[in-house]
Amino acid sequence: MTRTKDSSSEARLTPLAAALPSSVPFIGPEELERRRGAGFSARLGANENGFGPSPRAIEAMRRSLDGIWQYGDPASFDLRMALARHWDCGAENIVVGNGIDGLLCDLVRLTVTEGDCIVTSAGAYPTFNYHVAGFGGTIHTVPYRDDAEDLPALIARAAEVGAKLVYFANPDNPMGSYMTGDQVARAVEALPAGTLLILDEAYAELAPQEATVPLAVDDPRVIRMRTFSKGYGLAGARVGYALGAAELIRAFDKVRNHFGMNRTAQAGALAALEDAAWLDHIRAEVASSRDRIAAIAAANGLTALPSATNFVCVESGGGGDRSRALVAALGEEGIFVRMPFVAPQDRCIRISCGPEADMAQLEMALPRALARLDQTA
Amino acid sequence: MTRTKDSSSEARLTPLAAALPSSVPFIGPEELERRRGAGFSARLGANENGFGPSPRAIEAMRRSLDGIWQYGDPASFDLRMALARHWDCGAENIVVGNGIDGLLCDLVRLTVTEGDCIVTSAGAYPTFNYHVAGFGGTIHTVPYRDDAEDLPALIARAAEVGAKLVYFANPDNPMGSYMTGDQVARAVEALPAGTLLILDEAYAELAPQEATVPLAVDDPRVIRMRTFSKGYGLAGARVGYALGAAELIRAFDKVRNHFGMNRTAQAGALAALEDAAWLDHIRAEVASSRDRIAAIAAANGLTALPSATNFVCVESGGGGDRSRALVAALGEEGIFVRMPFVAPQDRCIRISCGPEADMAQLEMALPRALARLDQTA
Repeated sequence: MTRTKDSSSEARLTPLAAALPSSVPFIGPEELERRRGAGFSARLGANENGFGPSPRAIEAMRRSLDGIWQYGDPASFDLRMALARHWDCGAENIVVGNGIDGLLCDLVRLTVTEGDCIVTSAGAYPTFNYHVAGFGGTIHTVPYRDDAEDLPALIARAAEVGAKLVYFANPDNPMGSYMTGDQVARAVEALPAGTLLILDEAYAELAPQEATVPLAVDDPRVIRMRTFSKGYGLAGARVGYALGAAELIRAFDKVRNHFGMNRTAQAGALAALEDAAWLDHIRAEVASSRDRIAAIAAANGLTALPSATNFVCVESGGGGDRSRALVAALGEEGIFVRMPFVAPQDRCIRISCGPEADMAQLEMALPRALARLDQTA
Repeated sequence: MTRTKDSSSEARLTPLAAALPSSVPFIGPEELERRRGAGFSARLGANENGFGPSPRAIEAMRRSLDGIWQYGDPASFDLRMALARHWDCGAENIVVGNGIDGLLCDLVRLTVTEGDCIVTSAGAYPTFNYHVAGFGGTIHTVPYRDDAEDLPALIARAAEVGAKLVYFANPDNPMGSYMTGDQVARAVEALPAGTLLILDEAYAELAPQEATVPLAVDDPRVIRMRTFSKGYGLAGARVGYALGAAELIRAFDKVRNHFGMNRTAQAGALAALEDAAWLDHIRAEVASSRDRIAAIAAANGLTALPSATNFVCVESGGGGDRSRALVAALGEEGIFVRMPFVAPQDRCIRISCGPEADMAQLEMALPRALARLDQTA
C-alpha cells in the first residue's frame, strides 16, 4: 500500500519532538552484554547496590505479589506517611515517583518550556539534560572545580542567564565528591528568586553526616530528590521521591502518571525505609568496599579518589582516551564499569562498590585489562 | 523567612503548567477507603482482574526479587522479543512502557503541542484527555452511538478539525461494547493522512475473536496499545506496550523514561505472556462472572448490558443521579464500583468481574444498596 508523505510518523511529531535525537541517556549493561555476546561477571558500572536491599523489603515485596492484580495506590499514601515521619514533615511535602529520573521528567515538564534555560555542571547527570532538551530548554554548563560541582558558580550562572532550574547533586555523580551541608545552605542564599535548585541526593544515605543540608524540607527555593535505588538497594523497583514546598509538590499532580507506581515496589520501599539497621549495615559494607577498590587500584599503580558514595573514581593513568580503553578492556575481562564524560574528570574510570565476590573479580581483571592496554599501545 | 512573590512555586511553572488543574484522572480505591474509614469487601470498580495472574508470572516475579538491586533492562529486550514472536512482528515495532497510561503520555508528548487537537468520544477514557490537556492540546468529542464508540464519526470529526490523534478503545471502556475488527479496518480507510489512530486494546484479550483488527502491526496509520493489567491480571506491575510502525515506535526513545521499567514487572509480564492456558482460563472465568453479574442485576430488576470485557454495565433504573446514588450506596455496603461520566451512558453503573467471593458480596449488597436509595428517595 502506498502512503502519502504526510502519513509518515515524522510528519506527525511536534516540531520539538521531530528535532530530538532518538538517543538514550545510557546504554544499559544488558545491551552491552548482548553486544559482546557474553554476560558480565561483575556489574560495577551503574552504581547499583550489590549488597542488596533489606531482607524485610524482599519479604514485603514477596508478600505483596498476592495483590499484584490490583493497581498500586496512586497516592502512595502509606509510603508518603512513613516518609513524612522519617523527615518530620507533612505528606504534602512529598511526591513519590518512578525513580529520580521520572521525577526529574515531571519537574522539567512543569517548569521548562522552549526559551527557558537551566544550569548544570559540564559532565553531571545526563538524564537531567535529556529531559531538559526533551522539553525544549537550553542547557548552560559550569565546569567542575577540583573534581567537585561548583555550587556558587552554578548559582552565579543561573543569575546571569535567568535559569529556571539549577541542578546540583550532593554527593556528586560521577566524581563521588560532596559539599558540606553548611556550604550548600550558604550558597543557596545567593539563589535568584526565579530559580529553583534541584538538590539531587541520590547518594546521600551513603555520605558523611556533614553532607546533610540544614534547610527545611519545605524551603521553596529547593526541591530535594531522593531514591531507594542506591543506599536502599532497590534500583530495579523504581521508587524515588521529591521533598519540597507543598505548593510545588502539589503541582506534580497536574502532570504525573498517577497510577504509574508498581504496587510491589511501594511495599518494598516502605519496608526498606523502616529497616534502619540494614542501612547502617550497607553503609559499613560500602565503606569497606571503597577501601577495597582503592587498594586494588593502588596495587596496580593507580590512584583512587575519595568518595562519599557507593562508587569510586580511579585515575586511569592518562586522559579520556586511556580511560575509554580501560573501560573497554575491563569489559572484555567481564567487568562492567563506566567513566565520566568530560575532561579532566574523564581521566578516571568509575567503579561501583560491591560484595567481595565482585571485588575479587575486579582484582583479577584489572591487571589483565591494563596489560591489554600496554599490548595495544 | 520572607520570600518575594517571584520565589513562589506557581511563578516558576510554565504558563501551560500554571493553567492546569491539580486534579487526578481517577481517585483510587484506597483513597475512597481512607475517606470512608473502612476497607471495601469487594473491589469491583477498577476493572482489575481478581482471578489473578498466571501462577507462573507470580513465580517469575518472586524469583526476580533476588535481582531487584539491579536496574531493569531499559530496552525490555526479553519481553519485546517474546512479544515480537507473539505478534509475528519485529521488536522494532514494539515499545514497552509504564502501562497504557504511561505510553499515552509519551505519545501525546511526541505529537501534540499547543494549537493541536485530538478527537475522542465524550465519556471515553479520561486519562487520555488528562495527557492531552497536559500538553496543551484541544479535545474535540463525538457522542457515543447506541452505547458504543462511533469510529466513523470520530474519523469524520478528525478530518474536519485536522486532529493529530483519534482515540478509540476496542472493546470500549466504560460501556464494554465493541466493533468487529473488519468494521474497524474499513473505518480506518477514511483516516486523514495527518491523523494517527490510537487503538486502545486494553481489554482485547477478553473480547470475542471477531473483535481482532485485521491490520498489519506496522500499519503507519494506527498505533495499538496493549496491557498486562487486564486479561493478564498484572495491574499492579504497570506493564503496557504499543505496537506500530518502526519509525513511530522509535520516536518513543526520544522522550521515554528509559530506566523506568520495574525489573520484576518485566519478568512477570514475560511469564504471563507465555502462559496461554492461563489466559484461556481467565477468559472462561470472566465469561462466567459476566453472566453472574447479569443474573444478580436481573434478580434486582435491573438490566445488564452485553460486554466484551471484564466488566459489565448495569442500568441503575434512572439517570446519572440515580447511578451516582447507587455507586455511593454500594460503597457504603463495602462494594467499590464506578460509573460512566456522560449521559445517557451514566444511566449505568460499571461492575468489574471477579471471583465468586466478590460476586457473593455483590449479591448481598445490591438489594441493600437499592433499599437505601428507596429510603432516601
